[in-house]
Amino acid sequence: MSELKVFNHEKLKNFCTDVLVNLEMPRKDAFIVADSLVSANLKGVDSHGVVRMGIYTERLIRKLVKSSGEIIVQKETESTALIDANNLMGQIASVSAMEIAMLKAEKSGVGFVGVYNSNHFGAAAYFSMKALDSGMIGFAYSNAPATMAPWGSKSRYFGTNPFSVAVPAENKLPIVLDMATSVTARGKIIMANQKGEKIDLGLAIDKNGVVTTNAKDALEGAVLPFGGAKGSGIALLVDILCGILTGANFGPHISDLYANLIDQQNVGHFVGAINPENFIGRDRFKLRMDQIIKEIKELPTAQGFNEVLMPGELEFRLEADRKENGVPLDVDVIEILSVLGRKFSIRWLEEKV
Amino acid sequence: MSELKVFNHEKLKNFCTDVLVNLEMPRKDAFIVADSLVSANLKGVDSHGVVRMGIYTERLIRKLVKSSGEIIVQKETESTALIDANNLMGQIASVSAMEIAMLKAEKSGVGFVGVYNSNHFGAAAYFSMKALDSGMIGFAYSNAPATMAPWGSKSRYFGTNPFSVAVPAENKLPIVLDMATSVTARGKIIMANQKGEKIDLGLAIDKNGVVTTNAKDALEGAVLPFGGAKGSGIALLVDILCGILTGANFGPHISDLYANLIDQQNVGHFVGAINPENFIGRDRFKLRMDQIIKEIKELPTAQGFNEVLMPGELEFRLEADRKENGVPLDVDVIEILSVLGRKFSIRWLEEKV
Repeated sequence: MSELKVFNHEKLKNFCTDVLVNLEMPRKDAFIVADSLVSANLKGVDSHGVVRMGIYTERLIRKLVKSSGEIIVQKETESTALIDANNLMGQIASVSAMEIAMLKAEKSGVGFVGVYNSNHFGAAAYFSMKALDSGMIGFAYSNAPATMAPWGSKSRYFGTNPFSVAVPAENKLPIVLDMATSVTARGKIIMANQKGEKIDLGLAIDKNGVVTTNAKDALEGAVLPFGGAKGSGIALLVDILCGILTGANFGPHISDLYANLIDQQNVGHFVGAINPENFIGRDRFKLRMDQIIKEIKELPTAQGFNEVLMPGELEFRLEADRKENGVPLDVDVIEILSVLGRKFSIRWLEEKV
Repeated sequence: MSELKVFNHEKLKNFCTDVLVNLEMPRKDAFIVADSLVSANLKGVDSHGVVRMGIYTERLIRKLVKSSGEIIVQKETESTALIDANNLMGQIASVSAMEIAMLKAEKSGVGFVGVYNSNHFGAAAYFSMKALDSGMIGFAYSNAPATMAPWGSKSRYFGTNPFSVAVPAENKLPIVLDMATSVTARGKIIMANQKGEKIDLGLAIDKNGVVTTNAKDALEGAVLPFGGAKGSGIALLVDILCGILTGANFGPHISDLYANLIDQQNVGHFVGAINPENFIGRDRFKLRMDQIIKEIKELPTAQGFNEVLMPGELEFRLEADRKENGVPLDVDVIEILSVLGRKFSIRWLEEKV
């Protein structure tokens, strides 16, 4: 267990914004990227938090990702759009795409927007949740570099291909589903390998396609989809929507975020919104959401559980705690950020919360 | 293993159509229901095949489901509709809903239609696949009576809440994902119980919320969602789209198809279509689908697999075989159908294929 220090989330966000502005990113765009990363840290999704500042800045400096520019709407209907992200950061393209989807859903009940020529977009929930304030259901999907074997094969082909759906309620917390379609994150296997620990059976296969509990062998092999053939089918569907449908790269044609510092990624996203006003009505929808959440929360627990948790509920609790008590970062992440602080002469956050 | 006899699928379809026509169902509607059931048998999804004729006719005779009438479009935009199924059979409402969704997607790139006041709709793939001939991606979701415990609880709340997505290709077979969000069908546990067999660990919990391999205890408990918390979240999402959003019943408020012969079910569905023409273009989309299918099929297999199968591929093979060699039905199913044949004086299919 490496040493943790805690930092105020607002200061952390300002720091990251300042770093990106120093890389010629417009401040409003820099804020979006910083906000998406710190939001992930607040929710405990540290793998998609400020730790990414290292590789993000690396790719910006190498001009593999553009710091500034405009997205290009290539095609448009009343309810859809196809967007060329112009090789900007995934967060910037996806926030715009989500805004377009919501405008369309406001008018026509539904809006879905495909994005190509994009990059890593961080945590999917950041985009789906944009729909909540408008009382809409938000959707966000992305493809990703290959780490996962399709069910039945032993080769990496799919990314962890995450997706998120956010659903508003009236008085209850919103539902925020945000999941990778792999049974575990590759990052967790990397950590197990560093600690010399075994991994659970069923998470990964070795390079010969045999299930393994050896973390090192797993890293040379592939992560498995969650739920076997079903999760594999969903990972394929995510790649179809994000890659095949938009013109982005797909499967192993997406170059690795870290290992390939030569090629652009051409990641694809697919985001959307459904407006309950055009179905049962926005107010009734939210009240019915309260009812289903209340009913499920009140169910008796199974063996080994203290509580029935709704998707996203734990993350909201962590967020409240970390807003109050600070975001814990380990020494490796602190080192990444302080290097950036020195490089751009931005005062690093010595002080705790 | 009960005795199997094989029947010609066209004759089987005509027989089922004739039975339903005798229950005052318009022939075109009766054909849709019969076609959906026999299509499931052809694909090997016998649990959603002609075995359902028994309970379907029972509910029609008891006027729990209406034999004839029109669906009512309650709300409509360029890209969405909300439909009152008028308590007709789920298949009839959902085929209409899918046709509406596709018309909208033809004009505006996407169409999504919610359906309430409906009934059991059979296999979801029957509806998603309607989009294939138009080169669109089809979606079909339904909620269902409670058999499954939300992750962390020990009580049945969700149905198996299935969904299907169908994606066209150019020269390759289409992708047809069709899955329950439970890790197994309750029907399989019923069969294990009848045979006195144990079930695998992780499929179900007993009435105390403890995981069990005892089929009888599992039947008194609840089926588990596939992939743990992730599958549970997807089951919830299906119920939100089909139940909460449309005004249909949801969770345990949907009465059981078999056990409750007093109440209407008010099942909800959500179907839709995305038109690739408004994204990368229909032709390029299909060619890119061919590419991803080819690449995945050519991956080396993992231990224990002879081949990498695409979603729906096995079902297409079975369909070709059963169209050629007949649909095998076991004695229990044959008995259900021959009782109906005698009741309505419809000549039952003594002859084999």
